[in-house]
Amino acid sequence: MIDASRYPRLSRIKTPQDLRTFEPSELRAIADELRAYLIESVGKSGGHFGANLGVVELTTALHYLFNTPEDRIVWDVGHQAYPHKILTGRGDNIHTVKQKDGVAPFPKREESEFDTFGVGHSSTSISAALGMAVANKLAGNDRRVVAIIGDGAMTAGMAYEALNHAGGMEEEPNLLVILNDNRMSISEAVGGLTKMLGRMTGSRTLNALREGGKKLLGDKDKAPARFVRRWEEHWKGMFVPSTLFEEMGFHYTGPIDGHDMESLVATLKTLQGLKGPQLLHVITTKGKGYERAEGDQIGYHAVSPFNPDLGVVAKPGAVKKPTYTDVFGEWLCDMAAADPALLGITPAMREGSGLVEFSKQFPERYFDTAIAEQHAVTLAAGMACEGAKPVVAIYSTFLQRAYDQLVHDVAIQKLDVMFAIDRGGVVGPDGATHAGNLDLSFLRCVPNMVVMAPSDEHEARLLLNTAYAYKGPAAVRYPRGSGTGVAAGDSLDGVVIGKAVVRRQGSRIAVLAFGAPLPAALTAAEALGLTVVDMRFVKPLDRALILELARNHDGFVTVEDNVVAGGAGSGVSELLSAENIVLPVLHLGLPDAFQHHASREDLLAEAGLDADGIRDAIIKRWPDLAQTPARSAQG
Amino acid sequence: MIDASRYPRLSRIKTPQDLRTFEPSELRAIADELRAYLIESVGKSGGHFGANLGVVELTTALHYLFNTPEDRIVWDVGHQAYPHKILTGRGDNIHTVKQKDGVAPFPKREESEFDTFGVGHSSTSISAALGMAVANKLAGNDRRVVAIIGDGAMTAGMAYEALNHAGGMEEEPNLLVILNDNRMSISEAVGGLTKMLGRMTGSRTLNALREGGKKLLGDKDKAPARFVRRWEEHWKGMFVPSTLFEEMGFHYTGPIDGHDMESLVATLKTLQGLKGPQLLHVITTKGKGYERAEGDQIGYHAVSPFNPDLGVVAKPGAVKKPTYTDVFGEWLCDMAAADPALLGITPAMREGSGLVEFSKQFPERYFDTAIAEQHAVTLAAGMACEGAKPVVAIYSTFLQRAYDQLVHDVAIQKLDVMFAIDRGGVVGPDGATHAGNLDLSFLRCVPNMVVMAPSDEHEARLLLNTAYAYKGPAAVRYPRGSGTGVAAGDSLDGVVIGKAVVRRQGSRIAVLAFGAPLPAALTAAEALGLTVVDMRFVKPLDRALILELARNHDGFVTVEDNVVAGGAGSGVSELLSAENIVLPVLHLGLPDAFQHHASREDLLAEAGLDADGIRDAIIKRWPDLAQTPARSAQG
Repeated sequence: MIDASRYPRLSRIKTPQDLRTFEPSELRAIADELRAYLIESVGKSGGHFGANLGVVELTTALHYLFNTPEDRIVWDVGHQAYPHKILTGRGDNIHTVKQKDGVAPFPKREESEFDTFGVGHSSTSISAALGMAVANKLAGNDRRVVAIIGDGAMTAGMAYEALNHAGGMEEEPNLLVILNDNRMSISEAVGGLTKMLGRMTGSRTLNALREGGKKLLGDKDKAPARFVRRWEEHWKGMFVPSTLFEEMGFHYTGPIDGHDMESLVATLKTLQGLKGPQLLHVITTKGKGYERAEGDQIGYHAVSPFNPDLGVVAKPGAVKKPTYTDVFGEWLCDMAAADPALLGITPAMREGSGLVEFSKQFPERYFDTAIAEQHAVTLAAGMACEGAKPVVAIYSTFLQRAYDQLVHDVAIQKLDVMFAIDRGGVVGPDGATHAGNLDLSFLRCVPNMVVMAPSDEHEARLLLNTAYAYKGPAAVRYPRGSGTGVAAGDSLDGVVIGKAVVRRQGSRIAVLAFGAPLPAALTAAEALGLTVVDMRFVKPLDRALILELARNHDGFVTVEDNVVAGGAGSGVSELLSAENIVLPVLHLGLPDAFQHHASREDLLAEAGLDADGIRDAIIKRWPDLAQTPARSAQG
Repeated sequence: MIDASRYPRLSRIKTPQDLRTFEPSELRAIADELRAYLIESVGKSGGHFGANLGVVELTTALHYLFNTPEDRIVWDVGHQAYPHKILTGRGDNIHTVKQKDGVAPFPKREESEFDTFGVGHSSTSISAALGMAVANKLAGNDRRVVAIIGDGAMTAGMAYEALNHAGGMEEEPNLLVILNDNRMSISEAVGGLTKMLGRMTGSRTLNALREGGKKLLGDKDKAPARFVRRWEEHWKGMFVPSTLFEEMGFHYTGPIDGHDMESLVATLKTLQGLKGPQLLHVITTKGKGYERAEGDQIGYHAVSPFNPDLGVVAKPGAVKKPTYTDVFGEWLCDMAAADPALLGITPAMREGSGLVEFSKQFPERYFDTAIAEQHAVTLAAGMACEGAKPVVAIYSTFLQRAYDQLVHDVAIQKLDVMFAIDRGGVVGPDGATHAGNLDLSFLRCVPNMVVMAPSDEHEARLLLNTAYAYKGPAAVRYPRGSGTGVAAGDSLDGVVIGKAVVRRQGSRIAVLAFGAPLPAALTAAEALGLTVVDMRFVKPLDRALILELARNHDGFVTVEDNVVAGGAGSGVSELLSAENIVLPVLHLGLPDAFQHHASREDLLAEAGLDADGIRDAIIKRWPDLAQTPARSAQG
């Protein structure tokens, strides 16, 4: 419960309807309470932080002025939606965010009617809001639709596609796009757009505008239309007379200070009266109101639980196991030192993908494309044409955005591009939008691809070496977090393409494990005396070994942290069918369903991919194994 | 061979090196010969036409001035690359374009060192060229890189992503982007960008500029840098002082007349001396120099063989079978008339996807997003949130560009969006870049999706009805061209989700056919007395029927025009494994390789998916069937 003594106003707001009972003069105080409560609750739960602090005033003003949920507010990415969730009935539970059965980390339609569109990936909001606006117009509904999108998200092509469509429509859609400009993606925003926004909003001119704007806003007698015309003339005289947004067909207002409640309310009120595609440019500060977060915007983008009085501090003595991301980052630096042809590419995920050290050591070989997965992959293809060796570091879920580029620009041409795919398989607390459950399926069907899945940190290094040495499109796909904790080593040597490793010689059933679930499979199989193989390669499969195992085993179990549909295990069945081998195969993998947010361990256990689950599934299929004492050729 | 008597100059040009031996004053005549030869040869072969005629002068000037292949020319989409192919050693064979073993319809790296980047899909050129430029710079090569991109292709997000990246780089890349502005995609270009380009290049001002430009160009004494500055000041005074491209960090030159050889050569020469990201805006006419094509730019985008003296004429008496595209187009109009909630969406493929009639009958419910597949799908998701029923009409190969949007925006939210996927499976003469060989695999692994494949035109209509009636994400995937020719009918009734139809009750082996290959499978199976099922649904599979068939057959054959890897047949094996049924299964489908351009029939036969191929494969697996006289419960 929100403590009424400390949050006298906020504690009374269960819905935006409650918010609207307050006087405009109280909004400042409400925003202050909201910010304080946010700091307190994220301190307890961890979660996204900086972006949420940046939109406290904007969120308050929007729910105050717009008739939500009848009017539609679409948050881009959604990592800034905690204040929205707090004001729309989820304030008491916001500390459960990201936990199993807790509040979802992003807007989610199932969770609330105020969450108009589920998000997680960036740059979808203008498209979705435009779809809502035109559908409502055709249906004769006059509800208003607002999309809020960050400057980071504006670097992605689909935001531009949506602007281009909306701005060019004959029948002008009634759509308000709010550009929440904080100069940041997770890292600093990059690219030509960012430079342009910087030119438009240099501090001197912004301040001049703000003063000028306030004067105009005070003049209440004018009709809104005339008012906006003057406002526009005023700032237009100071800045570039034609901006990207106006070129695209939007009516542009701004920039205004996104933490100045008075300006926000007055400007939004004016815009509510206008028809056609509107763009409001709001300047905010990521981490606003929490000094440490303002000072370290990257570090406070998302946080583990922390004491707000102390800030985020490294736990003394706790030596963290290196994550797969760490293993990749170290490998990348080592390989870059050994081979000047290596170029590293990230679509705006320098920190998450482990490229911080590489970007420092090899700045001229480091490419942050902004949130632009499509471009990132085709850029790599172009580099490969010239004999460079590009390594695209990308999350599994975001690679979905560059699927055509992977097929059309890399694989068809068999170009020498390496993909280091992080967050493959079960990801966990960020929910379905961030899951990497599909990648083995959508990669395996692509001709010319080599697809690998390491089973531990040492294997990860070996397979990274292997993918790098391979002259063609190759992907190494590894999970979030760490594995067994085995040292990755410092070798730059690879393994033979398409060769698996028998990790345990047993009998009766051969367990073919792909990637992260290998340790669990090994535990399960040991108890039952089964053979276990670390397959290493999802494609090409180790045909010779599979044929040999088929000859001296009664059946196969395939284990993978990918959906069964079209996954690695399916590949094993295809191979057996092609070879006319009829053998029982049990496919263990992720379900044909999107998994909700929960811990990675919970989700793996739910899917039956922990050691117990694997053992139980095998015994269910071959009940007589339960009676067999464990046997092993090794033990 | 190019006839030397009619093409005295062109016949002497086997490589750009030959071209460079001519005087600049002869370029006009060379371009005229090139255009005439192009009209003659495309008249014989058919193929892309209008875009090629538009770039005759530009192609000639580029190969004359740039040191190709050392300098890199990257053509976007590549349907305008015939003049390029003619000037780079393929002039004698250009009439074989699109045929098996003939010249490829698009640039292809395997075909020529002058084809620096394989294309087919739009909007990849700036990314690829930027990759080349930065890789060369880092390697110390000073070759020049030029990307040529149409205004239609500029509507796609990835072009914007690439501009944003290139324009914002600290180390400015040496990259020339030529915007070939002809106001067209395949249909008219749409969107805010198009409107902006229109404002910049209204005919009056363009003419004024052209005259002014000529005067300046005549003044040879000036240093190039000063010259360009004056040129720039000249036109900037007339037009908008800041364009989208300059906002993005590019140095903008233009617009110039892309058919004025003198202007082109002079401007390109100047730009060769400049560093950093350059954008040259060239105005061209699609179909230039062939009156009928200029007058009907959509009709002459791509043509069948025709007599240039007569133009394209419908063959008298030849009544064409309706294609699947036609069946879809008619269905869409019928369903739209029945249900006002239906909205139709195309990413710039009105003609190809069969939406011409719908766009006329229901203009307010027709949405052409421009070449913007990502936006198109999320726009549909937004519409579905508001209770509309969007139908996204899209080619299989282009759906790859919206894969993340399909997963993240539609499927996770289980929104009521229908996908009408044209050109699924083998496509043919356009080659690997246009193949739809992967869609069943990349769709089947996505939770919440219903995926259907009709086996003939009548089935197509039934399944379109079914997908439309289904309240959730559903895809109907049909092939290029026509099927058996059976009437589609005018029903608006669907079938039961997940129910297959036994088309022939036989014995021993059950052939489970998915989509287009059903007739061939039926022919093959009849000869062998086998059972044949029209599966209709790739997902969900008809579990009950499969279990029943498994009980009274010795084995299954799955047949699909999708890669075997992760395809529909793989789904059947997964189901059997899940049910602990051990049965021989033979998977017939497309190979794990990209198929080169050839006729659809040739490619299907090569893959063994014609009736003979299917029969042979079955007999190879079950040789005793060859001795069995055909039996049928029906016959």
